[in-house]
Amino acid sequence: MKLPIDLQFLRRPFERRTPPGSAPGTAAKPEEEVASRMHLVAFGPEDFQETVIENAAEVREYLGSYDVTWIHVHGLGNTAQLRQLADMFDLHPLVYEDILHPHQRAKAEEYGDYAFIVVRMVELEPHLDTRQLSMVVGDNFVLSIEEASSQDRLEPVRERLRKRVGRIRQMNSDYLSYALMDSVIDHYFPVVESFGDRLDTLDDPLAAGYTNDIIPQIQKISSDLLTIRRNLLPHREAIRNMMGARFTRYTDNTTVFLRDADDHTSQLLDAIDAYRQICSDMRDFHFALTSQRANEVTKTLTIIATVFIPLSFIAGVYGMNFNDMPGLKWEWGYEFAWLMMISIAGGMLAWFYNRGWFKG
Amino acid sequence: MKLPIDLQFLRRPFERRTPPGSAPGTAAKPEEEVASRMHLVAFGPEDFQETVIENAAEVREYLGSYDVTWIHVHGLGNTAQLRQLADMFDLHPLVYEDILHPHQRAKAEEYGDYAFIVVRMVELEPHLDTRQLSMVVGDNFVLSIEEASSQDRLEPVRERLRKRVGRIRQMNSDYLSYALMDSVIDHYFPVVESFGDRLDTLDDPLAAGYTNDIIPQIQKISSDLLTIRRNLLPHREAIRNMMGARFTRYTDNTTVFLRDADDHTSQLLDAIDAYRQICSDMRDFHFALTSQRANEVTKTLTIIATVFIPLSFIAGVYGMNFNDMPGLKWEWGYEFAWLMMISIAGGMLAWFYNRGWFKG
Amino acid sequence: MKLPIDLQFLRRPFERRTPPGSAPGTAAKPEEEVASRMHLVAFGPEDFQETVIENAAEVREYLGSYDVTWIHVHGLGNTAQLRQLADMFDLHPLVYEDILHPHQRAKAEEYGDYAFIVVRMVELEPHLDTRQLSMVVGDNFVLSIEEASSQDRLEPVRERLRKRVGRIRQMNSDYLSYALMDSVIDHYFPVVESFGDRLDTLDDPLAAGYTNDIIPQIQKISSDLLTIRRNLLPHREAIRNMMGARFTRYTDNTTVFLRDADDHTSQLLDAIDAYRQICSDMRDFHFALTSQRANEVTKTLTIIATVFIPLSFIAGVYGMNFNDMPGLKWEWGYEFAWLMMISIAGGMLAWFYNRGWFKG
Amino acid sequence: MKLPIDLQFLRRPFERRTPPGSAPGTAAKPEEEVASRMHLVAFGPEDFQETVIENAAEVREYLGSYDVTWIHVHGLGNTAQLRQLADMFDLHPLVYEDILHPHQRAKAEEYGDYAFIVVRMVELEPHLDTRQLSMVVGDNFVLSIEEASSQDRLEPVRERLRKRVGRIRQMNSDYLSYALMDSVIDHYFPVVESFGDRLDTLDDPLAAGYTNDIIPQIQKISSDLLTIRRNLLPHREAIRNMMGARFTRYTDNTTVFLRDADDHTSQLLDAIDAYRQICSDMRDFHFALTSQRANEVTKTLTIIATVFIPLSFIAGVYGMNFNDMPGLKWEWGYEFAWLMMISIAGGMLAWFYNRGWFKG
Amino acid sequence: MKLPIDLQFLRRPFERRTPPGSAPGTAAKPEEEVASRMHLVAFGPEDFQETVIENAAEVREYLGSYDVTWIHVHGLGNTAQLRQLADMFDLHPLVYEDILHPHQRAKAEEYGDYAFIVVRMVELEPHLDTRQLSMVVGDNFVLSIEEASSQDRLEPVRERLRKRVGRIRQMNSDYLSYALMDSVIDHYFPVVESFGDRLDTLDDPLAAGYTNDIIPQIQKISSDLLTIRRNLLPHREAIRNMMGARFTRYTDNTTVFLRDADDHTSQLLDAIDAYRQICSDMRDFHFALTSQRANEVTKTLTIIATVFIPLSFIAGVYGMNFNDMPGLKWEWGYEFAWLMMISIAGGMLAWFYNRGWFKG
Ligand SMILES: [Mg+2]
Ligand SMILES: [Mg+2]
Ligand SMILES: [Mg+2]
Ligand SMILES: [Mg+2]
Ligand SMILES: [Mg+2]
Ligand SMILES: [Mg+2]
Ligand SMILES: [Mg+2]
Ligand SMILES: [Mg+2]
Ligand SMILES: [Mg+2]
Ligand SMILES: [Mg+2]
Ligand SMILES: [Mg+2]
Ligand SMILES: [Mg+2]
Ligand SMILES: [Mg+2]
Ligand SMILES: [Mg+2]
Ligand SMILES: [Mg+2]
Ligand SMILES: [Mg+2]
Ligand SMILES: [Mg+2]
Ligand SMILES: [Mg+2]
Ligand SMILES: [Mg+2]
Ligand SMILES: [Mg+2]
Ligand SMILES: [Mg+2]
Ligand SMILES: [Mg+2]
Ligand SMILES: [Mg+2]
Ligand SMILES: [Mg+2]
Ligand SMILES: [Mg+2]
Ligand SMILES: [Mg+2]
Ligand SMILES: [Mg+2]
Ligand SMILES: [Mg+2]
Ligand SMILES: [Mg+2]
Ligand SMILES: [Mg+2]
Ligand SMILES: [Mg+2]
Repeated sequence: MKLPIDLQFLRRPFERRTPPGSAPGTAAKPEEEVASRMHLVAFGPEDFQETVIENAAEVREYLGSYDVTWIHVHGLGNTAQLRQLADMFDLHPLVYEDILHPHQRAKAEEYGDYAFIVVRMVELEPHLDTRQLSMVVGDNFVLSIEEASSQDRLEPVRERLRKRVGRIRQMNSDYLSYALMDSVIDHYFPVVESFGDRLDTLDDPLAAGYTNDIIPQIQKISSDLLTIRRNLLPHREAIRNMMGARFTRYTDNTTVFLRDADDHTSQLLDAIDAYRQICSDMRDFHFALTSQRANEVTKTLTIIATVFIPLSFIAGVYGMNFNDMPGLKWEWGYEFAWLMMISIAGGMLAWFYNRGWFKG
Repeated sequence: MKLPIDLQFLRRPFERRTPPGSAPGTAAKPEEEVASRMHLVAFGPEDFQETVIENAAEVREYLGSYDVTWIHVHGLGNTAQLRQLADMFDLHPLVYEDILHPHQRAKAEEYGDYAFIVVRMVELEPHLDTRQLSMVVGDNFVLSIEEASSQDRLEPVRERLRKRVGRIRQMNSDYLSYALMDSVIDHYFPVVESFGDRLDTLDDPLAAGYTNDIIPQIQKISSDLLTIRRNLLPHREAIRNMMGARFTRYTDNTTVFLRDADDHTSQLLDAIDAYRQICSDMRDFHFALTSQRANEVTKTLTIIATVFIPLSFIAGVYGMNFNDMPGLKWEWGYEFAWLMMISIAGGMLAWFYNRGWFKG
Repeated sequence: MKLPIDLQFLRRPFERRTPPGSAPGTAAKPEEEVASRMHLVAFGPEDFQETVIENAAEVREYLGSYDVTWIHVHGLGNTAQLRQLADMFDLHPLVYEDILHPHQRAKAEEYGDYAFIVVRMVELEPHLDTRQLSMVVGDNFVLSIEEASSQDRLEPVRERLRKRVGRIRQMNSDYLSYALMDSVIDHYFPVVESFGDRLDTLDDPLAAGYTNDIIPQIQKISSDLLTIRRNLLPHREAIRNMMGARFTRYTDNTTVFLRDADDHTSQLLDAIDAYRQICSDMRDFHFALTSQRANEVTKTLTIIATVFIPLSFIAGVYGMNFNDMPGLKWEWGYEFAWLMMISIAGGMLAWFYNRGWFKG
Repeated sequence: MKLPIDLQFLRRPFERRTPPGSAPGTAAKPEEEVASRMHLVAFGPEDFQETVIENAAEVREYLGSYDVTWIHVHGLGNTAQLRQLADMFDLHPLVYEDILHPHQRAKAEEYGDYAFIVVRMVELEPHLDTRQLSMVVGDNFVLSIEEASSQDRLEPVRERLRKRVGRIRQMNSDYLSYALMDSVIDHYFPVVESFGDRLDTLDDPLAAGYTNDIIPQIQKISSDLLTIRRNLLPHREAIRNMMGARFTRYTDNTTVFLRDADDHTSQLLDAIDAYRQICSDMRDFHFALTSQRANEVTKTLTIIATVFIPLSFIAGVYGMNFNDMPGLKWEWGYEFAWLMMISIAGGMLAWFYNRGWFKG
Repeated sequence: MKLPIDLQFLRRPFERRTPPGSAPGTAAKPEEEVASRMHLVAFGPEDFQETVIENAAEVREYLGSYDVTWIHVHGLGNTAQLRQLADMFDLHPLVYEDILHPHQRAKAEEYGDYAFIVVRMVELEPHLDTRQLSMVVGDNFVLSIEEASSQDRLEPVRERLRKRVGRIRQMNSDYLSYALMDSVIDHYFPVVESFGDRLDTLDDPLAAGYTNDIIPQIQKISSDLLTIRRNLLPHREAIRNMMGARFTRYTDNTTVFLRDADDHTSQLLDAIDAYRQICSDMRDFHFALTSQRANEVTKTLTIIATVFIPLSFIAGVYGMNFNDMPGLKWEWGYEFAWLMMISIAGGMLAWFYNRGWFKG
């Protein structure tokens, strides 16, 4: 049996590299040596500029000139550039610390000049995990920093910007940050659905009933769904927080879209609950089936054994070596012994049958 | 055993056809090729007009002329007409997207000029499922769009309009939308009751105790009830939302009726809980019964085996081939052996009896 | 075993007689043909009048002349009279519908000129069930309608009115409706206590441990208590609703008494929880006891069988028919065989004893 | 096995002596004939007077003359005196009823001129039970009435008054009532701790693993802790109610102390939860241990039986009486038979060993 | 098996040394004779002074002269000095009592001139336990009192003060108290992670499946995690309380940092839940594995026994001593007997195989 436990998680619950008691805002250099890549998109309804940048200082020339400047950093390896960006946008040390320690729960916080949003990108390969996307949303910029991952969740948004799909080029930085968040949440859908597909492949072996490791597989699915649930739930809190009256960065125009993201989260949570219910049903079915079969085996074998025990006893009696045993010399003795044995066996079977032990 | 799992659900949790990261409001063409049928009823206290329309443009001529115009679209296949209606009523892209992706939870949302209501119609055939009814409720119109289904949940409301039953012709569009929602919720009652009927057919085989597949059946019922519960619960949230002070489309007059719909939802949820409790009771009863019977079988057979084991041993002893075994040549040896065997058997049975092993 | 399931409930969860989608307020004639009986009490601090009335129209002559007029209708069979009363007091169609479909949850609603209160009267005979008492509470009247039942829950209040016990004759219609509700809730006490009595009769057979059907009985009690809980809980919501600032019909004077009714409900719910805990304890005890006994039986029999198996084998060896078997002809062969068998049996028993298999 | 059920509770859930439907405020004479004893303490910062009184009328002479007069009634037997006190302080009939029916949940209610507080005193002897202490707190008096009990929970407060310990003589009636409540809650601590002591005595027999009745004992402790929890929880609600802005009798000065009482309640509830967790751990450990031992026994015996079965068969074969059986007359036949039997036994044991059946 | 129960906790749930009913604020001398050590740090942006003090009176000379004076007392043994400090800062008796009875739940309370904060420091050695850190936070001082412990949780903060790391020297007493609290919470991280390491060492023996005491170990981990959870949860309440509008001591500047501490607590609680889920998965896996193996053993042995039982019966029949038994003298009798026995065994095995008893 394969062990249905996510050892990955066991080894690295928190991405902490600073000792306990460090000054808040202390940000240790991440172990992973993925060099940060920086990508910049600047746009307005009519303008569009996209470029890869090497030095954070290049950002300044776009900031005032376009309605929205989106700086995206992929990978946490280049702390020098990150530090420079943090200084440029005057980030609070706690924000900077959270960006560099990518084990934060999804959340939305307002600081004076910007909002700080954390979402988690789900991925199935090489094993179920989530990666942090941090966003700093100012009046005319979005700074997004992504924990290195092989899967690009944000390319669809770039495409919409390039091709001017929908309203995104007309809208401000708050809408852009919503669009990024929405894209991240959208990518939970195929992940959750894949668990349905995996459950679907289990129903035939389950009905056949002989697969030993089906329970660990179901349990692994149920446990993974719970992990997704635990990661997803804070997104809903964050979204509702952003929609609330006390969170001022998101305009009414964008709030309507946040309500849609809220819907998506609820739908995902509903589907996760439904799948977990199916896991639980499958487990119950498996145990009902195997217990029924075990009963069948035990009952059959016990009945066979029990019927033969008195017969063997009779044979044993007639095998005793007494000099003078009645019947042994009788002409029909042997036939009588068989008659007795057959009667006893038949009587026992009839009695068992009457008591209903052969049914069900 | 039949597998008590709703594979249908496994295969299609979300009616999404757009890739993750699409612009919000993107609405892909539904796969199902059920051509939309459009039906229009326009009425006031004194006027009544009912017609099938082919082209969405025909709607305009009724809109101003009647107190309420109800446009009903059955089936999502004709996106051209739906698009035209969406433009006519200036629907928000998110509303249009929700209409075309019929996996939304029940909800009620206010947009500027209209409210958007989603409810889910339950159906048992060919298997337990729910279908989406979307409603756009404006000042003088209701636009309802129904995911294709073989069962018509709204005909009773049309009949009331035609025959002027009750107050419906005197009331406005908000009351009409309530009436449609009420009709949808009313149809949950026979569905929920049908599970009671199914449980009722299980009680005799359950009491008889030998039916192998009764547990999967009960489990399927319990699981289906949970599915209904999960679909129904958001209706209550939606209704309470509509009754709240911040939701302004529904007048106090109609709010009284919404309170009644709220009652109905609570009654349904209570009945579902009660039925699930019965499922759980039946399951417990079945396990108590089968475990009692299994104990009875095991105990009987074990006692038989155990009583005969020493007897067979004695017979075996007297079957040994020693040249010089005491008793073998004794006149009453054989009788003595029987006496010994009967005494041992009787003694064991008496001892078992005294310890209470034959009781209960 | 008796099936611990309340089939009554299975068959009639909702007292609905109108098809889904009927106009709200549609009230079908109840199937039960219990002719309604009407009873009227009119009173003030000094006046008292009690009479049986045949025609609802008779009510009018009392309405203005007394401080409070209480019209009580027993049985829903006479819809003509009920309709007449509904018209007289200008009842909302939804109120009328709720009165005629006696499966409502306990609730309190304010309409313009009256409050509408529903409570449920519990009864144990012929089986656990609840009956609806609907109350319409106006400025100078209480109209109460009771689903037909063989048990009179309201007579104590009539007695207090007749005999001028306490303050009831000095108070208004709101206090009268409280008194009726209080009397209904009071009658839950003996019902809940009766489950304690039933549990009390089960403790001796439970300790004896051999009663097969004790688990279904306990389960039935626990399930019934849950049914009472489900019926009772909405009363608390209704009472708290009536005490709230937004519910205006009940004066501060009466609110003090409602708080007492709220206490009673909480005490009942506490007692139900305590009894259900006892049920659960009894169940656990039963399973601990039976499993201990089953272990004892199995262990004893298995040890007997296991000890004899090698002995029988030795006897079998000496029963082999080899021409030339050592020991068979030895003078002490037979005695040696016994010695061997006794040693083996003793050794095994000693070994079992050392491993602690005879303890506990 | 002792039955782990508190029959006391079964017999007397409610201390009601009035029939259902009685006028609210009806107070039947308690069955217990414990004659009430009345005790009075009157004090101010400088004055102190303590006396036993026979007649309630004596109270009047102290009421105006001291800052605080505390009248304490022990035992509900003397209803005449209680009635006189109720009249003197103009108690609401519902308050009087609650005093005489000592099954109330802990609560705090404000009436016009006084607050009415109920707390429950826990006691372990002769079995776990709680007794009601009712307090009426007016501007310059506290009237406390205690259900008869052999344990005095309030003497420490009297001592503090006599010896002027702490601030109690400087404070008003609200502080006195807090002090009484605090003393009652303080007495829960040794009771809860005693369950820890009892669990502590169970760990050695538990580790030994052979005690049959350990599960019922643990279950009884867990159940008793739940009973305490159920009694204690309403105290927290009552205290928070008293601290709330809408409850006006308790000054800010005293509210600080109420917050301390609130802490104590939370600590008790935490400890109860921790103990119940330990009960659950012990139960799980016991089942793991006994199931491991049962497996060990069963496996050993089954292996013994299974190894001997083929051997006995071989012996049986050589015991057949065929005229002409190969081997019987062979010189080494007997030795060959033994060789075969030993080989088979050894082979089976080796096979079992290889499959790991001897491990764990 | 080792008993997975924390006996330490059993013995000392509450650190109470005063009898029930003592005056609130009564503080008994702690049993532990750890002499208090007093340490003082006084600082401002530019000034820094650190000293060990012997007498509490020395504190006064620093209080006015520095922006912040931090007095830290380690160990509760020297009540004279503690009393002096309490008098110096005019501590409420309840605060003093809570400091001396270190079993308080984490909490934050405002008194007039100071806030009183309690946090609990977790430690794993010698066994899982928590120690109380009490803080009194005034305008220009922090008085912290720590239950004696071998582990210093606060040294990192002292280091930051000494080395002027981060902003701590620029900030006020509220920030210092936050920093102490943050350091305490930070130390939960390695403790929680250590449970992951322990679970990680269990997965290989778990997969091997033969370790008897793995379940108690897992259960102990799960139970310890629950203990940490119970201790940690009140910190979140306390932090949210401190962040709330009604708690005035913490400025907006510091509230941002409290939000970070709140995040940490939530992350810890999430990790605890995830680990407990893994414990539960491991337990389920273990039971699935052992039950599968037990089934395998039982089935194999039962099949062996059952196949041989009829064979032995046949051998027994041919061992009967009838004078005239057919076949015994037949030339091929013996071969025929073997044929019969082999056929029966083969037939039974084939039948078992067909019924699928060898699979799974
Ligand atoms: Mg920190
Ligand atoms: Mg931090
Ligand atoms: Mg990660
Ligand atoms: Mg399939
Ligand atoms: Mg906002
Ligand atoms: Mg949507
Ligand atoms: Mg999207
Ligand atoms: Mg969408
Ligand atoms: Mg669908
Ligand atoms: Mg039936
Ligand atoms: Mg409204
Ligand atoms: Mg209704
Ligand atoms: Mg309806
Ligand atoms: Mg209705
Ligand atoms: Mg009924
Ligand atoms: Mg009894
Ligand atoms: Mg009111
Ligand atoms: Mg009362
Ligand atoms: Mg009453
Ligand atoms: Mg009462
Ligand atoms: Mg009592
Ligand atoms: Mg101990
Ligand atoms: Mg011990
Ligand atoms: Mg207050
Ligand atoms: Mg305290
Ligand atoms: Mg105290
Ligand atoms: Mg205290
Ligand atoms: Mg401690
Ligand atoms: Mg490992
Ligand atoms: Mg604040
Ligand atoms: Mg942080």
